[in-house]
Amino acid sequence: MEKSTMAQSKGTVVLAYSGGLDTSCILVWLKEQGYDVIAYLANIGQKEDFEAARKKALALGAKKVYIEDISREFVEEFIWPAVQANALYEDRYLLGTALARPCIARRQVEIAQREGAQHVAHGATGKGNDQVRFELTCYALCPKIKVVAPWRLPEFYQRFPGRRELMDYAKKHGIPVPVTPQTPWSMDENLMHISYEAGILENPKNQAPPGLYTKTRDPATSPDNPDVLEIKFERGVPVKVTNIGDGATRSSALELFVYLNDIAGKHGVGRIDIVENRFVGMKSRGIYETPAGTILYHAHLDIEAFTMDREVRKIKQGLALKFSELVYNGFWHSPECEFLRHCIRRSQEPVVGTVRLSVFKGQVYILGRESPRSLYNEELVSMNVQGDYEPADATGFININSLRLKEYHRLQSKVTVKQDE
Amino acid sequence: MEKSTMAQSKGTVVLAYSGGLDTSCILVWLKEQGYDVIAYLANIGQKEDFEAARKKALALGAKKVYIEDISREFVEEFIWPAVQANALYEDRYLLGTALARPCIARRQVEIAQREGAQHVAHGATGKGNDQVRFELTCYALCPKIKVVAPWRLPEFYQRFPGRRELMDYAKKHGIPVPVTPQTPWSMDENLMHISYEAGILENPKNQAPPGLYTKTRDPATSPDNPDVLEIKFERGVPVKVTNIGDGATRSSALELFVYLNDIAGKHGVGRIDIVENRFVGMKSRGIYETPAGTILYHAHLDIEAFTMDREVRKIKQGLALKFSELVYNGFWHSPECEFLRHCIRRSQEPVVGTVRLSVFKGQVYILGRESPRSLYNEELVSMNVQGDYEPADATGFININSLRLKEYHRLQSKVTVKQDE
Amino acid sequence: MEKSTMAQSKGTVVLAYSGGLDTSCILVWLKEQGYDVIAYLANIGQKEDFEAARKKALALGAKKVYIEDISREFVEEFIWPAVQANALYEDRYLLGTALARPCIARRQVEIAQREGAQHVAHGATGKGNDQVRFELTCYALCPKIKVVAPWRLPEFYQRFPGRRELMDYAKKHGIPVPVTPQTPWSMDENLMHISYEAGILENPKNQAPPGLYTKTRDPATSPDNPDVLEIKFERGVPVKVTNIGDGATRSSALELFVYLNDIAGKHGVGRIDIVENRFVGMKSRGIYETPAGTILYHAHLDIEAFTMDREVRKIKQGLALKFSELVYNGFWHSPECEFLRHCIRRSQEPVVGTVRLSVFKGQVYILGRESPRSLYNEELVSMNVQGDYEPADATGFININSLRLKEYHRLQSKVTVKQDE
Amino acid sequence: MEKSTMAQSKGTVVLAYSGGLDTSCILVWLKEQGYDVIAYLANIGQKEDFEAARKKALALGAKKVYIEDISREFVEEFIWPAVQANALYEDRYLLGTALARPCIARRQVEIAQREGAQHVAHGATGKGNDQVRFELTCYALCPKIKVVAPWRLPEFYQRFPGRRELMDYAKKHGIPVPVTPQTPWSMDENLMHISYEAGILENPKNQAPPGLYTKTRDPATSPDNPDVLEIKFERGVPVKVTNIGDGATRSSALELFVYLNDIAGKHGVGRIDIVENRFVGMKSRGIYETPAGTILYHAHLDIEAFTMDREVRKIKQGLALKFSELVYNGFWHSPECEFLRHCIRRSQEPVVGTVRLSVFKGQVYILGRESPRSLYNEELVSMNVQGDYEPADATGFININSLRLKEYHRLQSKVTVKQDE
Repeated sequence: MEKSTMAQSKGTVVLAYSGGLDTSCILVWLKEQGYDVIAYLANIGQKEDFEAARKKALALGAKKVYIEDISREFVEEFIWPAVQANALYEDRYLLGTALARPCIARRQVEIAQREGAQHVAHGATGKGNDQVRFELTCYALCPKIKVVAPWRLPEFYQRFPGRRELMDYAKKHGIPVPVTPQTPWSMDENLMHISYEAGILENPKNQAPPGLYTKTRDPATSPDNPDVLEIKFERGVPVKVTNIGDGATRSSALELFVYLNDIAGKHGVGRIDIVENRFVGMKSRGIYETPAGTILYHAHLDIEAFTMDREVRKIKQGLALKFSELVYNGFWHSPECEFLRHCIRRSQEPVVGTVRLSVFKGQVYILGRESPRSLYNEELVSMNVQGDYEPADATGFININSLRLKEYHRLQSKVTVKQDE
Repeated sequence: MEKSTMAQSKGTVVLAYSGGLDTSCILVWLKEQGYDVIAYLANIGQKEDFEAARKKALALGAKKVYIEDISREFVEEFIWPAVQANALYEDRYLLGTALARPCIARRQVEIAQREGAQHVAHGATGKGNDQVRFELTCYALCPKIKVVAPWRLPEFYQRFPGRRELMDYAKKHGIPVPVTPQTPWSMDENLMHISYEAGILENPKNQAPPGLYTKTRDPATSPDNPDVLEIKFERGVPVKVTNIGDGATRSSALELFVYLNDIAGKHGVGRIDIVENRFVGMKSRGIYETPAGTILYHAHLDIEAFTMDREVRKIKQGLALKFSELVYNGFWHSPECEFLRHCIRRSQEPVVGTVRLSVFKGQVYILGRESPRSLYNEELVSMNVQGDYEPADATGFININSLRLKEYHRLQSKVTVKQDE
Repeated sequence: MEKSTMAQSKGTVVLAYSGGLDTSCILVWLKEQGYDVIAYLANIGQKEDFEAARKKALALGAKKVYIEDISREFVEEFIWPAVQANALYEDRYLLGTALARPCIARRQVEIAQREGAQHVAHGATGKGNDQVRFELTCYALCPKIKVVAPWRLPEFYQRFPGRRELMDYAKKHGIPVPVTPQTPWSMDENLMHISYEAGILENPKNQAPPGLYTKTRDPATSPDNPDVLEIKFERGVPVKVTNIGDGATRSSALELFVYLNDIAGKHGVGRIDIVENRFVGMKSRGIYETPAGTILYHAHLDIEAFTMDREVRKIKQGLALKFSELVYNGFWHSPECEFLRHCIRRSQEPVVGTVRLSVFKGQVYILGRESPRSLYNEELVSMNVQGDYEPADATGFININSLRLKEYHRLQSKVTVKQDE
Repeated sequence: MEKSTMAQSKGTVVLAYSGGLDTSCILVWLKEQGYDVIAYLANIGQKEDFEAARKKALALGAKKVYIEDISREFVEEFIWPAVQANALYEDRYLLGTALARPCIARRQVEIAQREGAQHVAHGATGKGNDQVRFELTCYALCPKIKVVAPWRLPEFYQRFPGRRELMDYAKKHGIPVPVTPQTPWSMDENLMHISYEAGILENPKNQAPPGLYTKTRDPATSPDNPDVLEIKFERGVPVKVTNIGDGATRSSALELFVYLNDIAGKHGVGRIDIVENRFVGMKSRGIYETPAGTILYHAHLDIEAFTMDREVRKIKQGLALKFSELVYNGFWHSPECEFLRHCIRRSQEPVVGTVRLSVFKGQVYILGRESPRSLYNEELVSMNVQGDYEPADATGFININSLRLKEYHRLQSKVTVKQDE
């Protein structure tokens, strides 16, 4: 008889459950430790047999199972602010996982509160970002919550140093083990993106194997004709997509996003292979597919540049850089991130209009744009019409701007021994 | 008899001459105004019949003609620092024209000093950025120089309100007029890029016509097989390109850049259509092709992320944003831009290594990277090996990071009426 | 007979009139040029005989005179946002003049619109910041307005190269000339501050003469006992001042500010002598007195640090730096400055509480603070009580933070030839 | 017989020893745990009986005692870069303690390496910044070192929950206990500053008691005549101080700094009372005296503004903000802080010249400045001389700057329902 069955009850824990081997073992292990386990599986757009997962969790002894469809709030409350921000971590990563975590964890805390559970648990590793994103959300929304992170508990990670030990444990406890061979990398999917990392990808020189990608087609075999779309924005958020080719339209946030995923995926848009800096201080290599997110990044950048004042844009760009870093690091639910979202949202009031673009062979090409609120003034900028502009003014403008440079030159000339630049 | 022939000599002017209609008319007009004109034509990689231009200038009365090949210094002294910076104006524009201007104007000032000319002249318009970039360079390097900018002089621009008047003037003064019909947009080319703007492109909704592009092939008809390249960097600058397919290599800066232009152009890489904010305060629409620059942007971003410390990168990113803005606005030769170049160059010391990438159908795909100086630690990041890492430390890390968030929650709870975010 | 009397009417101009020699001469000169002149004198807290000025303007031929008390809106709409921002230009200047200009010019544009005047005029010099601040406000609020700036018109400034020519002109046109000898520097005063510059102060080495200061007493002769004040803030704005010594209180914005000016002036608080960088590109030397502004700067800094989250503060500090620069340069009425004011105002919602301070011998000493919304947690920070804090967590926090530094050290060790730092 | 003598040897530890009760108890406790203890006492300018401390440490069983005078390197290698940066944490704190920690810890690591010790130990608390500053330095310079931080070890801090238990332990182990009653706050002193915190100061409303200050005289009783000093800078660092009153001069870094401490202390300069944000996420209240540092902050700010280009200054200001935060948080020895020091040092090349200032009643007043490398141009800025400046240019400058504002106004007018700002 297992020692664990003797353990006194430690109360209820809400476990973020995926249905996979790791969290199935964790579920059983938590019970062993004396917890009542409520399994929580967020439907955030990943491909998954949710009913099978529910049955599995119950079979493994979950007291209760929550399967929550949070796709819509993921799009409207997490992805949209990121689109408004043109959020990009380290110039490349569209933050697909980082945006999903606070959305998933927020619901988990809500369930814990509803169920009177004192604990939440997750299966994130001890080296990654997700543990941080997960737990900072929990602590920010419910400071009294206790987090159980087995992969950081010596009694857990020393017992399961590798996959083999997990498999043994699973077999011993009647946990179904995967029948298909494991991919030599790990994946994490949601509506916005899928990530591939670890395993053979840990060597940053290794090229991604051909069959790895699942959300986008290979540009080499993608259609030979583009899809041309018009995306309409209001307050910096897409409100309508029209496919110029077949006239298809989508207007609700979730449907629109799913549609863009389809189109972008079909044309192989949104693949990147990067090395990034984790919050815990190490560099890691990740391969990501973000189909709809990539289209929206380009489209929003364009309509924003078209409608926003130059100097407001510059300030907003600085705020968005900070925002992206905070989201990556797990601080979505923090005073500073709230503050930034408020400021960025404010900046989006004039970001209204329609962008036309072509999706083709892995690329998004902007074709044109129009807006009822643009600051673009065709007459003013025209090479052929003078408009309300006095060319002679530019002389004064340049002369005054050169004043400082001339003074600097004067000083430099005085300094006989010039430093090597 | 023209009044101008009576004008007393105003001294010598060095005119930035392109061989086209505008600067040919300006050349003659400057002579009319009483200047001795030295024509200066910079070979900065554009496609041009330089000898024909020389003859034309002499025929129009230029006292002397300088045709200067500054391609190499353009690459080494201007493009390379931009590559190190990942320089991008408003998140999209790789600064092809902005980088060329200070290079062209610097040589022009040198010629003026060598020739004892008190004046320099150019044919840039009064609404654009180029006048600023041109003149700030001149004033910074030679504060006493006088600039003649005919397109800002009422006596000039009122005399030539449109192309027709220029044509009339040209015919009257024996200036050869173009035989091919003018494109309904204007172009500016150098080794790094070509820009298309004005004319029918002034309507930001108008799609670029199919035949517009000249430096890149249409991705729709580009090769069905990628070129795979390895680009080796030292101190953030490419020092060798190897084509994995055919083993071709290039090592000298200029040849390497030309080669990348060929490969990228062949695969349709580097096209953008944007609305940007000019320094003089108006929005303008431009279409650009930057083939080699686009490859290098992606490759450098990758090797930099691989080798540079996270926090150094963040600081450097801020400096590069400022650098890009300064370059766009014409402040290459300014104390602040010198300072930034110094700092950015310093940051590039560890940026050493090789990036492997694929060029295909308008896209650049990073495939892998390696470096003798990377901060990437495969063992540390491994999911399967613990390495020199204690998972339990992450618990303390997260707890301390959550402290501030918990305190904020405590405060928020005290505030009974919560503000709408 | 003057040629000017023949000039056809150029319409109406609203002149920012000070009552002094310069703007009196400008008033007459504008009439000479054919303008109908409306004199506008803003009461923004300076010491002035407004009625005498009104009579003088009418006597000189002003069609109408507006004397407008805008002190209250100056405090509430301009100084308060600066207090919220801790606005400081180049780390030292509290922006006393820069804040007043847009307030003055805004009213002037309103008068022009009410009177149907097409022009506004001012007596600011062509080298300074005030011309810019003045005119950017006018153009931003009324793009069609025409500005007449005599000190930038060659026909004016060449006619009046020095004070002597102005005096001659005044005598000739019956303009009263000052009877007291001119100070060998120029002054500009408003409710917030007084500036001294030009004349003997142009040599940056020259010490300010003893009798120069007018708004503050010499700390050497100021009282030997401090005044102790409590300043209460709401949303980052002072709402009540209490003098602990005599129990005096002030609550309305204007009265509170005037009272702080009195107290601070009595104790010699707020004097600085600086060299600053003007927007037009030159360095200038200014001596300023900002009594109440200096107290409020220190008090607000303290209550803000006490109540605002650390990371919000950091972001807000960056925004305020930009805000200060914009205000200095004259961009108060710009989209970016509006945006910043909105964001900064948002950040001030929790800035509530009371600061106690002592004003003595030129200094402001913070003595203590309290707030119903502070994030300060006495138990948490206590050295003697553990509170809700686990010291062991700090170990993990430090270890994870050191990870990146150790990796860097590892890399540095690999690089055999270390660069000189 | 003590249990500790039975413990097997854990190797050698270098303890940062202060001679006080805490670290004396720690010394004995470490021996109990089985360590060989080397006591290290840094002379960094604090008032201390170093020989008494040496004897005490030996008496308590230290294997060896190092008393290291690191004052000179503290000034030259740590304070000088901070002066160049105008380093200020959260707008107020001159970083006196934060600068000392990496200097102290660096020597400690050197001693550990020399002695072959695997461990270092310190007596910093688990809630503060010093533990972080200390340990990050150790790990950055010697990644393999082990840190023993008793105040974060449950077996230690649970054994000594309060001062009483420490006293008991001391008495039991023959550790001399302080004969003077403890101040109801804690202090930390070095050459640059002294801090007071904890105890009765933990209530942020409590005013500092009159007798608290030790490094500066009360301004109320300080001399009634100022000291006037001239401070000469080279590359942003003070190289000579001259007292205009008595002609005294100091030139070497350490002597100069000590002299400024004397003068500033005599006049009550450098006291602040603040609430600051610790790196671990809590707010704390501290009272600081930084006499010489305060004078140098003002003097350097002045000479820098006088000699540095406006735009370089702005960039450098941003870097210095980041630098200050890093220093506060303990990242002196990090790649990013190294990078920033390099950039800031570069910016200081033109910062050469002499500042004259007056020190009086708690204040530093700048009186004037001169420099062989100033960008100040007296003729250019003169109100009476036109110099090499064309006032008409300012018209064009303003007009072009207003273009964007006019366009924005045009847009706003189109938007019928204006948003409340």
